[in-house]
Amino acid sequence: MKDKKIAILGTGFISDFYISTLHGTRARDRAIMAYSRSEERAERFAKKWDIPKWSTNLVEAVGDPEVDTVIIGLPNHLHVEAVLACANAGKAVLCTKPLGRTAAEAKQCLDAVEEAGVFHGYLEDLVYTHKTLKAIQSVKNGALGEILWVRSRETHPGPHSDWFWNKELSGGGAIIDLGCHCIEIARNFIGKDILPVEVMCWADTQVKPIDAEDHGIGLVKYESGAIGQFEVSWNFRGGMDLRDEVSGVEGTIRLDHFLRTGFEMFTATGEDGYVAEKAETDKGWLFPVGDEVGALGYDNMFDDMFNCIDNGEKPYEDFYDGYIVNAIIDSCYKSAETKKWENIDLKIWRGKTGVSKISGLKDYDDDHYLVKEEKLPDGSFKLILKEKGTGKIIQRETR
Amino acid sequence: MKDKKIAILGTGFISDFYISTLHGTRARDRAIMAYSRSEERAERFAKKWDIPKWSTNLVEAVGDPEVDTVIIGLPNHLHVEAVLACANAGKAVLCTKPLGRTAAEAKQCLDAVEEAGVFHGYLEDLVYTHKTLKAIQSVKNGALGEILWVRSRETHPGPHSDWFWNKELSGGGAIIDLGCHCIEIARNFIGKDILPVEVMCWADTQVKPIDAEDHGIGLVKYESGAIGQFEVSWNFRGGMDLRDEVSGVEGTIRLDHFLRTGFEMFTATGEDGYVAEKAETDKGWLFPVGDEVGALGYDNMFDDMFNCIDNGEKPYEDFYDGYIVNAIIDSCYKSAETKKWENIDLKIWRGKTGVSKISGLKDYDDDHYLVKEEKLPDGSFKLILKEKGTGKIIQRETR
Amino acid sequence: MKDKKIAILGTGFISDFYISTLHGTRARDRAIMAYSRSEERAERFAKKWDIPKWSTNLVEAVGDPEVDTVIIGLPNHLHVEAVLACANAGKAVLCTKPLGRTAAEAKQCLDAVEEAGVFHGYLEDLVYTHKTLKAIQSVKNGALGEILWVRSRETHPGPHSDWFWNKELSGGGAIIDLGCHCIEIARNFIGKDILPVEVMCWADTQVKPIDAEDHGIGLVKYESGAIGQFEVSWNFRGGMDLRDEVSGVEGTIRLDHFLRTGFEMFTATGEDGYVAEKAETDKGWLFPVGDEVGALGYDNMFDDMFNCIDNGEKPYEDFYDGYIVNAIIDSCYKSAETKKWENIDLKIWRGKTGVSKISGLKDYDDDHYLVKEEKLPDGSFKLILKEKGTGKIIQRETR
Amino acid sequence: MKDKKIAILGTGFISDFYISTLHGTRARDRAIMAYSRSEERAERFAKKWDIPKWSTNLVEAVGDPEVDTVIIGLPNHLHVEAVLACANAGKAVLCTKPLGRTAAEAKQCLDAVEEAGVFHGYLEDLVYTHKTLKAIQSVKNGALGEILWVRSRETHPGPHSDWFWNKELSGGGAIIDLGCHCIEIARNFIGKDILPVEVMCWADTQVKPIDAEDHGIGLVKYESGAIGQFEVSWNFRGGMDLRDEVSGVEGTIRLDHFLRTGFEMFTATGEDGYVAEKAETDKGWLFPVGDEVGALGYDNMFDDMFNCIDNGEKPYEDFYDGYIVNAIIDSCYKSAETKKWENIDLKIWRGKTGVSKISGLKDYDDDHYLVKEEKLPDGSFKLILKEKGTGKIIQRETR
Repeated sequence: MKDKKIAILGTGFISDFYISTLHGTRARDRAIMAYSRSEERAERFAKKWDIPKWSTNLVEAVGDPEVDTVIIGLPNHLHVEAVLACANAGKAVLCTKPLGRTAAEAKQCLDAVEEAGVFHGYLEDLVYTHKTLKAIQSVKNGALGEILWVRSRETHPGPHSDWFWNKELSGGGAIIDLGCHCIEIARNFIGKDILPVEVMCWADTQVKPIDAEDHGIGLVKYESGAIGQFEVSWNFRGGMDLRDEVSGVEGTIRLDHFLRTGFEMFTATGEDGYVAEKAETDKGWLFPVGDEVGALGYDNMFDDMFNCIDNGEKPYEDFYDGYIVNAIIDSCYKSAETKKWENIDLKIWRGKTGVSKISGLKDYDDDHYLVKEEKLPDGSFKLILKEKGTGKIIQRETR
Repeated sequence: MKDKKIAILGTGFISDFYISTLHGTRARDRAIMAYSRSEERAERFAKKWDIPKWSTNLVEAVGDPEVDTVIIGLPNHLHVEAVLACANAGKAVLCTKPLGRTAAEAKQCLDAVEEAGVFHGYLEDLVYTHKTLKAIQSVKNGALGEILWVRSRETHPGPHSDWFWNKELSGGGAIIDLGCHCIEIARNFIGKDILPVEVMCWADTQVKPIDAEDHGIGLVKYESGAIGQFEVSWNFRGGMDLRDEVSGVEGTIRLDHFLRTGFEMFTATGEDGYVAEKAETDKGWLFPVGDEVGALGYDNMFDDMFNCIDNGEKPYEDFYDGYIVNAIIDSCYKSAETKKWENIDLKIWRGKTGVSKISGLKDYDDDHYLVKEEKLPDGSFKLILKEKGTGKIIQRETR
Repeated sequence: MKDKKIAILGTGFISDFYISTLHGTRARDRAIMAYSRSEERAERFAKKWDIPKWSTNLVEAVGDPEVDTVIIGLPNHLHVEAVLACANAGKAVLCTKPLGRTAAEAKQCLDAVEEAGVFHGYLEDLVYTHKTLKAIQSVKNGALGEILWVRSRETHPGPHSDWFWNKELSGGGAIIDLGCHCIEIARNFIGKDILPVEVMCWADTQVKPIDAEDHGIGLVKYESGAIGQFEVSWNFRGGMDLRDEVSGVEGTIRLDHFLRTGFEMFTATGEDGYVAEKAETDKGWLFPVGDEVGALGYDNMFDDMFNCIDNGEKPYEDFYDGYIVNAIIDSCYKSAETKKWENIDLKIWRGKTGVSKISGLKDYDDDHYLVKEEKLPDGSFKLILKEKGTGKIIQRETR
Repeated sequence: MKDKKIAILGTGFISDFYISTLHGTRARDRAIMAYSRSEERAERFAKKWDIPKWSTNLVEAVGDPEVDTVIIGLPNHLHVEAVLACANAGKAVLCTKPLGRTAAEAKQCLDAVEEAGVFHGYLEDLVYTHKTLKAIQSVKNGALGEILWVRSRETHPGPHSDWFWNKELSGGGAIIDLGCHCIEIARNFIGKDILPVEVMCWADTQVKPIDAEDHGIGLVKYESGAIGQFEVSWNFRGGMDLRDEVSGVEGTIRLDHFLRTGFEMFTATGEDGYVAEKAETDKGWLFPVGDEVGALGYDNMFDDMFNCIDNGEKPYEDFYDGYIVNAIIDSCYKSAETKKWENIDLKIWRGKTGVSKISGLKDYDDDHYLVKEEKLPDGSFKLILKEKGTGKIIQRETR
């Protein structure tokens, strides 16, 4: 295990969360350089987190000889420049989500790091939550059979910083901000090597005084026939709603990451201080999250990234994944305009192709397929069968 | 209050549920006639429920002079004929869902009862659950502000009788069977007088050896900009999943009707007998429903219907509602084929038109709209504002 | 089925709930007489519920020739007089909980109705909730094996009327008010024919400026070795907490009747109107109960009572049960003072005696009892066994 | 931050959990010595966890010059000897729970480490879960007002190793094994400086073929009048039930650590592998825990211990706390035999004494105390007041 000496680029909300995760443990890894476009913010951030050096010069920050790893926590429109700087400097680079504002930007990032041969990690934290990783493992172990449908929902009352609300800087609205999580979560459950084929997306600006969408819903269809459904909104009331549902031929999973996790508090008086990210009230029934860092996946994410750097391995999420997500989002925005399903245009695809459609066909006997078997209230069993020869559906009751 | 003397048409699962509801209370209302196409089933059903008369002749059953009210619990393809017989006989008629296989059939039913001037009720039970009625009332009281989005999900491992699985007889698959509930639930939350404008729908046969869809997802867009989202499946594992979510400018509602209702049981040994409709296991963790009749809305539904007959009023759900739902479903099936949004073609519309789009615009001061206000972990407040003049988004921090 | 013509005694909160249950359905049963000590309240109540007659004379109200059934909804100190009046008048009598302030009072009631030979029902509604009845049935079916422990909790921010808070009138505090429910619920799960033997009880006045206890916890030990644990409080914050847990050799049950029943609402603005009995807030996260009448058991309770009157049967809960509960409570108050376990002094016991203690002994093989078998994280199995001969505990690992 | 070089004593289930926590992170801290009474187990454990040295000689293991910190994961009857060895060797010592089999043993441990002046930590992990720490903080911040009652429940189907089931080796049954957690959790919520005064405890052997209790319930009364209630059992079915409830004058908290934490899975087929500690089934509805290490508090616990060693501070839980817990348990066992409340005999007490009883008295106006205020279903408000002069309880309704 080798100590990481990190440059953190950006000093906003996400960088705070990243560094509080890293410096909050007994790990050897430490930020030693903070970069911001503003000297005041750079200095303040560095002092807050006990980071010895700070800079307003991107190339110098990245190029500092002590720095071996760069974490990009900058607004979306600054990712490409920052990634190119890291590639140039030959530094391992970890970039926050989304990788780019568009697939073109994401591809530029991917190409740069691959040409430079540097380590690249895509900081898709929500795939790394303890629950999500364990659930993905159960799916891989076959607990749910083949996956038919995934719903990933991320809604809250809106992001923290001004640039998110500016379509030019962020690349869109709730879909680019939150949909990138949901799309990649669904992809992980359905299989990262299963080709996403086409998308249907609805997007609207229902409440907020902005140009971008504040609410969006999309269906991503995979070659297996599986559907990855995302629901994102900046209009949700009641806290931060992060939930996933997975449905397979043999089972189902439900995850609640933030609102109902086994911690419930009623307070008539409130307390001074912070309840949970994006909580809306401080009195009445509240649902604090015990371990926000873990519930958002930051701890596992950095462990994986740094261990992979140590071992010369690919991390669970890298820039290739970031590119796939951006390509899907591009098609979402197109579909929201054309009001029809749109193909996903992947310049790069490293998974399977020609996967055949899921089939749940079950033989009942030589002459019949099983459609359904059910125990009725009176204790009898009812069988619905399909005759193989005629295709006719019949029913039988047994006691 | 006048005793209802009821003819029940059909002797399958739903008729069992209807009559067990009616005969299970201390009400005066009783079935006095049972009709089935099969004499054996008619007689068996009549004896089971202590119904004095039975018949295999539809016109005679409906026309029996003692009968004042007819409940149609027949397969979908037999609804039109049965409704026409009731209209002819001048009897109050309550028809199970969906009203028709198509909007054309539903309109035929609606036209017939309106021309005959008989009472007509649409047995959309899931709108009548105690939870749903109470939630709708809260929405009408303004607890959620304007409604932005409704999700209604009904999935289970498939219906009870052979005819459901036959597209010709039922009119489709999971969408006609289950989507009719979800669509009408969403319509109730969004407002029954708000025009449904267009739909986008995905449907597929993922698992079952049938021609119709066993899984479908649809978005119904209303004139207010609200979205009614339905998710239906015959492939779900783990019981019967009936859940609704409602999101408004000022609040949110979540309803779980069947799987997590405050009754949890672990049994290592099981027991002989019935756990709950469509439960899949009888050992391990089980989630029985205390009051299935109430959880499915049957009690409130018949109370409303019979009280309205007594008082000469329109029930909460009538054939007009059934027609609207069928018209939406017609467009869903079309959209699933054309892969684009399809307009909803309503021959009859009795609600509002020209409703303007929801607006959540909030003034912060004379010069700014409020985009967002948030309390940060360090106790400070962050404001995101939009300058009215320039349209620029800015942020301010206050302590 | 015969229409019940009811005299309702008392016009407070509980009588409101009773009559709204009865008049809210399509049943034939109706209140035709209202009695209150105050003419003004009697008249107001009668008009509110469309009751044709009212009176301030108890004997006249009960003795009215049209009245066949009397429901007692009076404060505790008035139960004996009212029951005696009913017995004298030869009317069926249903009495709210607790039956008496003491076992002596309860016995006086029981003796009177039995001597007069009139029907008597004990209105222990919480045993009659849909969930509770279904759970009791599962226990009777053997789903949990022999019952080891029951926890019944009823806590809320305090009762509605002044007399509850006066120890002389009510017979105590939270234990007599709420413990009577919990004790009878536990008795139903453990078995109504299993002898309650002794109790240990803690009671204190922690918060309220009253003489009686506002918080109490008790353990009731049954002859089988099972424990019925009750927790009652008038100091609870956050609504009305009605929960039961049942633990048996083969399983467990958890019931939540009021706070987490599958209905969740967040409202930033609130609405005008009533949320749920004893809810404390009208903004933020709220947990309305869909069907309060059903969740509190009123519907099933009156159905059982009236059907039993019709059929000449004993109801599920009668004055004998009320007497047993009062006898247990008497011992609770004694134990709270003496600070030791106190015997339960039952002048009347109609259940089993000499029941032997629960035994969960399981043979593993001829030489060993099974203590425990567990699957470990690495997939191996670990056995804990007891040697029959030596009594020694040993362990074995198998793969 | 200084790397810890750890000797781990014992190679059973708990040592596995401890070392998997420590070696599973990017921390510098590592076990470098494993001790077991059995050479074979010592070697196997060392190899499994990549620990360079192992020994069957306690004094040598502890005295190894490279070792700076010792973690005791041995059976209860071996704690004293191990602690004394550490004190002799002048090493920092962390001991698993319970500290001793009796208060006398615990005091021997405490005296030894204090005389030797070595760092001592009590590995009460369940106080260190993310949820518990956050909840304790909210209580300290006043969110619940003064604490009235805590319920801590830990039940499961029984421990992993043979020695637990042997009363001589472990010091008792479920109470010494699980009650030690619950007692200390309650103490943390009520206030570690509030004197525990007396206890009432029930214990029985209901199911298992053992001498010790397999089920116990206790009430610990504190000087403030608060009650800490524990419920422990080795007979529970359905997994591992770890829940806490806290009730205060102004609020309430509910924690579920293991069975309902926002991860639900239904699987008809199961999967190969481990679901969660003490889960009983691998099909049907399962409730995996995302982060078992975090849910059990191991991560925070070791972070606190090692940081305190680095900084020369006292950890959140040390041997003094272990001693208090053992003293309470001694009184529990006594009370279970005498069947009355027993005083807690504390030879050492370092908290407050003479704390006055909680008072929730609230003035309504000059002449009245407020008993209760409630909003009724019809929208009116009802006040219950106590006249200061007369002590009389009155009620007022306002609209």
